[in-house]
Amino acid sequence: MLKFDQNRPMDIIPIGRVAIDFNPTDIHKPLEESKNFNKYVGGSPANIAVGLSRLGKKVGFIGKVSDDSFGKFVTNYFEENNIDTTEVATCKNGESLGLTFTEIKSPTESSILMYRNGIADLMLESSEVSEEYIKNAKAIVVSGTALSASPSREACFTAVEYAKKHGTIVIFDVDYRSYTWKSKEEVAIYYSLIGRLSDLIIGSKEEFELMEGIANFEDKSDIAIANRWLAYENKIVVIKHGKEGSVAYTENSSYKIKPFPVKLLKSFGGGDAYASAFIYGLMEGWDIIDALEFGSASAAMLVASHSCSEDMPTADEIQNFIDLKKAEFGEMVARG
Amino acid sequence: MLKFDQNRPMDIIPIGRVAIDFNPTDIHKPLEESKNFNKYVGGSPANIAVGLSRLGKKVGFIGKVSDDSFGKFVTNYFEENNIDTTEVATCKNGESLGLTFTEIKSPTESSILMYRNGIADLMLESSEVSEEYIKNAKAIVVSGTALSASPSREACFTAVEYAKKHGTIVIFDVDYRSYTWKSKEEVAIYYSLIGRLSDLIIGSKEEFELMEGIANFEDKSDIAIANRWLAYENKIVVIKHGKEGSVAYTENSSYKIKPFPVKLLKSFGGGDAYASAFIYGLMEGWDIIDALEFGSASAAMLVASHSCSEDMPTADEIQNFIDLKKAEFGEMVARG
Amino acid sequence: MLKFDQNRPMDIIPIGRVAIDFNPTDIHKPLEESKNFNKYVGGSPANIAVGLSRLGKKVGFIGKVSDDSFGKFVTNYFEENNIDTTEVATCKNGESLGLTFTEIKSPTESSILMYRNGIADLMLESSEVSEEYIKNAKAIVVSGTALSASPSREACFTAVEYAKKHGTIVIFDVDYRSYTWKSKEEVAIYYSLIGRLSDLIIGSKEEFELMEGIANFEDKSDIAIANRWLAYENKIVVIKHGKEGSVAYTENSSYKIKPFPVKLLKSFGGGDAYASAFIYGLMEGWDIIDALEFGSASAAMLVASHSCSEDMPTADEIQNFIDLKKAEFGEMVARG
Amino acid sequence: MLKFDQNRPMDIIPIGRVAIDFNPTDIHKPLEESKNFNKYVGGSPANIAVGLSRLGKKVGFIGKVSDDSFGKFVTNYFEENNIDTTEVATCKNGESLGLTFTEIKSPTESSILMYRNGIADLMLESSEVSEEYIKNAKAIVVSGTALSASPSREACFTAVEYAKKHGTIVIFDVDYRSYTWKSKEEVAIYYSLIGRLSDLIIGSKEEFELMEGIANFEDKSDIAIANRWLAYENKIVVIKHGKEGSVAYTENSSYKIKPFPVKLLKSFGGGDAYASAFIYGLMEGWDIIDALEFGSASAAMLVASHSCSEDMPTADEIQNFIDLKKAEFGEMVARG
Repeated sequence: MLKFDQNRPMDIIPIGRVAIDFNPTDIHKPLEESKNFNKYVGGSPANIAVGLSRLGKKVGFIGKVSDDSFGKFVTNYFEENNIDTTEVATCKNGESLGLTFTEIKSPTESSILMYRNGIADLMLESSEVSEEYIKNAKAIVVSGTALSASPSREACFTAVEYAKKHGTIVIFDVDYRSYTWKSKEEVAIYYSLIGRLSDLIIGSKEEFELMEGIANFEDKSDIAIANRWLAYENKIVVIKHGKEGSVAYTENSSYKIKPFPVKLLKSFGGGDAYASAFIYGLMEGWDIIDALEFGSASAAMLVASHSCSEDMPTADEIQNFIDLKKAEFGEMVARG
Repeated sequence: MLKFDQNRPMDIIPIGRVAIDFNPTDIHKPLEESKNFNKYVGGSPANIAVGLSRLGKKVGFIGKVSDDSFGKFVTNYFEENNIDTTEVATCKNGESLGLTFTEIKSPTESSILMYRNGIADLMLESSEVSEEYIKNAKAIVVSGTALSASPSREACFTAVEYAKKHGTIVIFDVDYRSYTWKSKEEVAIYYSLIGRLSDLIIGSKEEFELMEGIANFEDKSDIAIANRWLAYENKIVVIKHGKEGSVAYTENSSYKIKPFPVKLLKSFGGGDAYASAFIYGLMEGWDIIDALEFGSASAAMLVASHSCSEDMPTADEIQNFIDLKKAEFGEMVARG
Repeated sequence: MLKFDQNRPMDIIPIGRVAIDFNPTDIHKPLEESKNFNKYVGGSPANIAVGLSRLGKKVGFIGKVSDDSFGKFVTNYFEENNIDTTEVATCKNGESLGLTFTEIKSPTESSILMYRNGIADLMLESSEVSEEYIKNAKAIVVSGTALSASPSREACFTAVEYAKKHGTIVIFDVDYRSYTWKSKEEVAIYYSLIGRLSDLIIGSKEEFELMEGIANFEDKSDIAIANRWLAYENKIVVIKHGKEGSVAYTENSSYKIKPFPVKLLKSFGGGDAYASAFIYGLMEGWDIIDALEFGSASAAMLVASHSCSEDMPTADEIQNFIDLKKAEFGEMVARG
Repeated sequence: MLKFDQNRPMDIIPIGRVAIDFNPTDIHKPLEESKNFNKYVGGSPANIAVGLSRLGKKVGFIGKVSDDSFGKFVTNYFEENNIDTTEVATCKNGESLGLTFTEIKSPTESSILMYRNGIADLMLESSEVSEEYIKNAKAIVVSGTALSASPSREACFTAVEYAKKHGTIVIFDVDYRSYTWKSKEEVAIYYSLIGRLSDLIIGSKEEFELMEGIANFEDKSDIAIANRWLAYENKIVVIKHGKEGSVAYTENSSYKIKPFPVKLLKSFGGGDAYASAFIYGLMEGWDIIDALEFGSASAAMLVASHSCSEDMPTADEIQNFIDLKKAEFGEMVARG
């Protein structure tokens, strides 16, 4: 199992994308007709940072923001949420923060319009990653999107190199976004290079197939995939199947969790809540199945809310949610 | 004086920037604290197009929009405002529409945050400019920002080349925006190349100084500047001095106008209203001083409104505004 | 006629491309089989500079070279040939000098292989063009290739702006090379912008058709083309027809010259010799037809030699060549 | 020890840089004064390919050449040297072959001038690497320079991924060239990612220090470095010390070789000869010390010759050279 070094002052450091989400207030229409928007901090690792901080963990962040009002909005928001911003770098060449305009057409139809050209988070440089910071943390979370372009790609490998040197746990959250990558080949190459070095991988079935896009092994069953990545340094491999639930594989066992029943508002944001609460459970030393259940509950809460970051729940809120759902649907509502 | 060919079906074609303005609804605070925004069509030539259409002119547009919901929002909006969109091209390589987030800190302090990397309007190509379209119009308006980068720069020169060949009036609205240009030298070079070919230039004193930034003549008085540009093909040169008003120079005369007194909401958008209403007056065959007064009145109305495009007034509205102000402050409230 | 200000210390300043020619010594085979090469200074304006210096003119140069042995080779060569190098800038970002590997398959089949990516000469910046230098010269020669990319393009317009301000004659040598341009539209736009400002244009019929590629006038006869460009500021327009000879047009007259009979070694380099010797004649105050004959003779000498720059003749050598050819073929060997 | 699969039809496939060397014939002067040059195929993996082919191995090549006379020169040369060219791709976007102009000032002072902007070899794409080709080969040689930029970098990782899948031996020849890399951080990152996957690494002490530039371990002794890389998948790690000789480390042993005494003509090219002959020895199943001696002899022969590729020796020639040197200087002339 994952062994977090309990002597380190910082719990966890997500690395990578931080952006702004503009979510329409006049929802249930196509984006071109929406005329009013709310602004939230967004980006998968930023959401995970907020999620883990709300759960009481001591959270840092390695990333890069624009040198303007939007960059300031992000660091202000992190500070309000007790996320350490000492290692959030600031762009010097006029790059802008990434933007995500979401279309919430119906509970199941959500599309997004991204501003990703010349974007701050991908400008993070190797030299802006602090060895000391990583040495003092129990774990880092590398978000796959940060691998999509240089110099952010190299900054991630630098962080992983420091983590390996100092025994900091490396969590790889695949978080594939097609528009940030040049080609499927690059996706496969850089995902599998990180996946060979990480201690825990969280990804959807499709994301694991992308990771193995070059090698293209014949046996594409979950168990075969999980075993291939467990053969490197990974102790846990989580394969997600959307509405079908997800499975965590270890060397000898597997653990299955289903989604909690909930009234959807939108179809995104769940993954970041899942990752935060699952990692939280692992860091607390819980059994894998309990951590999975916590993750699944947090995900269910998020897809019923308007924002991603702003609506991340506390541990008590998640526990209440689980208790309520179990009362209504039975103890095994999400388990196996 | 400018001779518009009255036999042509189209009145006027602005060329260049079209973008989206996000104006905060929670105004009078710094941008990083604004959390809710309204979305409007923006960009100087787009605003001028809307302005002239509201004034009853038959308006076309030469520009380029993104192949997404935002691009669709722009063409929908143009169509609702009776602006012909047959020559609005669509990007094919994933470029995004420019965005302008405005900060309305106080009536006189407004700053903006621009998204201008990999932006649709600057991707307009020479080959996307239709000779027939320009041949059938009385005038084109070249907006200086469209000269700031290739291939949009070359598209403008192509439009001007067609205009010269067919006797279409060329109006050069300088509209300088520092963040779109590589260097002051490029500004001077391309402004002065267009300024040598245009029939009417509208710019602030600072913009004319930029235009002459390479030649750097000793005599920088308004009259000397105006005469240098009238010595090429220009019939009218308008030099604007902000709150001090503006002056239109012709070969033998000059005409001065002042701003109308008005309660400011924001400090931007006035220039586009001014240009629309002034050009409208000229196209109607009015005396220059009357056209200037109309421009000044429209500008005053705009800086008291929340949007740029959406609040462009009709001719009746401008006339009512002028009548009211004259009733209150006297006939010469804006004139010399 | 062109009026050169005789009070100026410098005669002429070519602007633009300077590169290195590698000409095979094992000629009359395809380039992939050539295994030994001689190295010469090359590039049209560099060749013209050498040509005019050999003819006794006081010659400067505005251009940019690499910060390496090849850049040093160029400035050394210029100095050996009495060309002033005070305004030859040096690249600071590792750009390389352009290279031209020539294939001399037969006297009439020559192809070239160019190295033009990230090349020094196109890096010349506006701010590296000295107003004083141009003010002190009788004429500048703008080579069309220097217009093919930024920032060299803007440097040329800056030079022309200074020349217009100070009455320095502007000679536009079209020198079209397809591989340096992005599109035919750009060629047409920038050629015609310079052609509207120059005092003398030298180009082939094809090059004039490229210049008018946007306007695309119906009447494409030599006389119509010449008149269109004489209608701007040009006093002389020279249209070249290869083996058929060339014609110089002025407001009221035209002058025709044919090639001198000569045994060809290679099919390139003649144009630069022609330009040098023709300009030399004009600067000496000769009749246009005499200047043309001198140009034609120098061109004939060059195509019979191995290099372009190194074999540029002196005035005496050209005169001897003309005398010999006239003795052999008659007084009118090249004239009309 | 390395286990080459003897059933495979192809012996070895170098991957990466292929370029043209222009070596001056008028040597012993600075490059700016050299006026005549011989043209040779160059680039480290190309030289190694020629070297191994001369030694009788069945050699392929994965690389990319320009679509011009120089590209044709390379493929012709490879074919004359029995190197399979079926997997040498051709550029489609006008890229040029890299060029190396060498200055041979004295036997120990050689500098080079590189043309590396927009260069063919770095354009090799992932999708141009054939899984079948690598599956059918006993070994591949990844040259570090091919890792310096995308898409060639990704093509190398793709090749290595195929090699790992099919049990093809991966040889990493570090071959560091500062001018092809963006930063020392990138060097460290990509070298160490390949170094974790390879079976044999050949590099100088300085190159190994670059590889460990991020991790920056305290113990920088040869043995510590070797052990760190042997702890991954490497069976042999060769650390070179220039004139001091080199050492090959295996899990339990080390083998030292010195240079053979020879009259230097130039100070480059030796490394590629060394790699070819050493790899040849390993593939023949020789003892490591014998393979090292063969490598050292071939290196000595190369630095006494004018070209790199063209002068690669056969096995008989190397053996004769060793025999002669041993006759003159004793059996242990190069050994330990």
